[in-house]
Amino acid sequence: MEITCQLNPAADQPLYEQLYRHIASEIGRGRIPRDARLPSRRALSRHLRVSESTVSAAYGLLQDEGYIRPQEKRGFFVNAVQPLPEGGPAPQPIAQPAAGPAPRFDFSTSATDASLFPHRAWMRLMRETLHHRPDLLQRGDPQGDWPLRAALSDFLYQYRALRAGPERIVIGAGADYLLGVLLQLLPEGSVVAAEDPGYHGLYRACGRQRLSVLSLPVDEAGMSSARLRDSRANICYVMPSHQFPLGLSMPAGRRSELLRWAGEQPGRLIIEDDYDSEFRHQSRPLPALQGMIHDAPVAYIGTFSRSLAPSMRLAYMVLPDALLARHRQGLYKTGETVSRFEQHTLARFIAESHYTRHLRRAGNAYAARLQRLLAQLSDIPGASVSGEQAGLHFLLTIPQLSEQALVDRAAAAGIPLHGLSEYCRQAKAKPSTVVMGFAGLRDDQIDEAVAALRAAWGV
Amino acid sequence: MEITCQLNPAADQPLYEQLYRHIASEIGRGRIPRDARLPSRRALSRHLRVSESTVSAAYGLLQDEGYIRPQEKRGFFVNAVQPLPEGGPAPQPIAQPAAGPAPRFDFSTSATDASLFPHRAWMRLMRETLHHRPDLLQRGDPQGDWPLRAALSDFLYQYRALRAGPERIVIGAGADYLLGVLLQLLPEGSVVAAEDPGYHGLYRACGRQRLSVLSLPVDEAGMSSARLRDSRANICYVMPSHQFPLGLSMPAGRRSELLRWAGEQPGRLIIEDDYDSEFRHQSRPLPALQGMIHDAPVAYIGTFSRSLAPSMRLAYMVLPDALLARHRQGLYKTGETVSRFEQHTLARFIAESHYTRHLRRAGNAYAARLQRLLAQLSDIPGASVSGEQAGLHFLLTIPQLSEQALVDRAAAAGIPLHGLSEYCRQAKAKPSTVVMGFAGLRDDQIDEAVAALRAAWGV
Repeated sequence: MEITCQLNPAADQPLYEQLYRHIASEIGRGRIPRDARLPSRRALSRHLRVSESTVSAAYGLLQDEGYIRPQEKRGFFVNAVQPLPEGGPAPQPIAQPAAGPAPRFDFSTSATDASLFPHRAWMRLMRETLHHRPDLLQRGDPQGDWPLRAALSDFLYQYRALRAGPERIVIGAGADYLLGVLLQLLPEGSVVAAEDPGYHGLYRACGRQRLSVLSLPVDEAGMSSARLRDSRANICYVMPSHQFPLGLSMPAGRRSELLRWAGEQPGRLIIEDDYDSEFRHQSRPLPALQGMIHDAPVAYIGTFSRSLAPSMRLAYMVLPDALLARHRQGLYKTGETVSRFEQHTLARFIAESHYTRHLRRAGNAYAARLQRLLAQLSDIPGASVSGEQAGLHFLLTIPQLSEQALVDRAAAAGIPLHGLSEYCRQAKAKPSTVVMGFAGLRDDQIDEAVAALRAAWGV
Repeated sequence: MEITCQLNPAADQPLYEQLYRHIASEIGRGRIPRDARLPSRRALSRHLRVSESTVSAAYGLLQDEGYIRPQEKRGFFVNAVQPLPEGGPAPQPIAQPAAGPAPRFDFSTSATDASLFPHRAWMRLMRETLHHRPDLLQRGDPQGDWPLRAALSDFLYQYRALRAGPERIVIGAGADYLLGVLLQLLPEGSVVAAEDPGYHGLYRACGRQRLSVLSLPVDEAGMSSARLRDSRANICYVMPSHQFPLGLSMPAGRRSELLRWAGEQPGRLIIEDDYDSEFRHQSRPLPALQGMIHDAPVAYIGTFSRSLAPSMRLAYMVLPDALLARHRQGLYKTGETVSRFEQHTLARFIAESHYTRHLRRAGNAYAARLQRLLAQLSDIPGASVSGEQAGLHFLLTIPQLSEQALVDRAAAAGIPLHGLSEYCRQAKAKPSTVVMGFAGLRDDQIDEAVAALRAAWGV
């Protein structure tokens, strides 16, 4: 029997490796039959014009892996290896799929302003952490490293009035990831009440866990505790700081009512997604629901993706006792999901007050941008805005046009926008309303961006 | 009515904030009743000996948040806020729980040798990425950034013979995380066959997804396709490169049989956990199951936690067509879980050949350590080792003592070890056998560590 193949001395793989792969593939495909005798090392080396040691190395690998067996003084014989279907060709290099055209102006609600990122301080702390803490290469605490949890606990008490000792805090790679972990901890058969309009990701996360979701309408103060009480939900998911997409802040009275509801029956829980709580333009942030009473039946989720950068996969949750105990049980044990170097960099970033300084600086910049944008929009006849007291987006209503016309005409001018109704399930969206994120817009683009929108809309 | 509280000018919180918190809490607890009139700003400022502007600021916050309402010329009145249960005290600072004593010698299977970490190259690439790529602060591709997937695709083809175009690769924060994502993609009612003994994390991951798991015994070649065929499993989870804990490498024949089994019925799938495949001390790594045939019904999971560092939360999986399509569906959309700076640092680390150089260097160091350790153990009468051909752990059998005695006596000498039976479900463990990881042991500790074990065991 003859073995013929193209060996390429210029390739990355050594010749013996190429030869080994060829023969293994021939055996695997049944082209060299069971019990066939392979050519002697010498014969094959002459035939292929390679050294005998190349053939020896290839045969050695084939023997190691059970493709062939030696027989004393007779050479190598092919073992029984079930033939496999024909293999396809090696994968062809694939070009990166082309991204769509960049928007002319970015009014999305997911961008932030990269120029505000505290680059120098972050770099210095990251460098020091990488240099001085080789111990951080080993496994860390699955709940997150203690120094970060301690720094967060202090920060959350000072700035969000949270009652969150480090022992209740769980660090994870993004708010979506932590929401998934949290939903896994809920008792089977739980029913989740969602704000309508609200965050679509909640429906997906519940769907992946096979949990039922009810959409409850949001009134001017947020989710209604009366509607909650009438429903069969035992869990409610709310964004009290700056509801997405409506931009509402839930007033103190409504917060108390929700806490009442949750306290009325065991097994009830509020999931407080503290979305967009970091920037408040007209007064200070309201304290979190979680801290309003002792042992609140609240699981709190926060993230750094709005306040630092969307690509920082750094979020945290604060669990009440029952869920904390469940999270520590064997079933829920998983490894940590955030690099320890990033955890310790962030811990120092918070503890050494870089974070609060950054929030102040970025907050001022975003507030100024918002003011300028609102001023440019203010003389559109009939236009109104809402949800602009806090956060990085607001709603804009232009009653002259339908929502669809607002979105379509903006798109035609190269400006992608989302209509409010895209975030509704059963609720009826306020008509003629679009969602305007402004964190990704540069200051020097505002005048031009508004002029382009007004031209497109003819207002 | 009188308001009395302790304000502390030396505290971190400004005075108006302290005053606001006090009054909000008093209202929330019902101690200041509904419709009560608050003292005038002037009266309260005198009473508390603070400035009138401090009181004004606190009242402003209370009004913003709906606790009080102004009445013209009459001052502020308390709104209806449902009283809440008594709040507890502020959280007390909690000390970090003390870690257990460090092991005298580390034979765990989770450590790696931090001194082998390619610190200089990694740091340089990380620094350059942080400096020159501010665009990486924005959101990335949820499946992982293309340059990392492209670099991995090349590497996996060259070194593991995988057929994995970048479009099939999913990046995630650790193998455990990706396993969870993968299990969510399986059809409902799937039954997973697990290697026994094997990886306990699989049972937990399946438990969280409410999937059934069957334990199938492992023979000298791995999981048996005959046993698989007799079972009702449609999914099998195997570690062909260096099975944990047995240390087996699955021979080519068994690999083909498993692929046959998977191809026999639609809906069957092999999950190939390429655990510990990077270091092979006696021959080159076997090619992965995934690449043995075209369109193999295999989902492949790999990680950098053994080859670079356990704290790098960087893993990847390669999905077959059906699961890839499902993963891209709306329900399974989630954000990325790995910092884009780390993704791009790793992409360059691989593409610029640092990774393969590191694997060679670390592989030589681990092989030398293993040889020395085996030499030290070789003259224990009756002792035998297995699973030492590859990877960073092996099994040690000392027939003179029971497994329990081996573990207990080592523990008494300050050396934590795991017995093989700890990883068994229904399978009977080879008696008198412990699992020996050697990646976390320093070279200069080997002689002393073996002497200590032999003294403890009296062999």
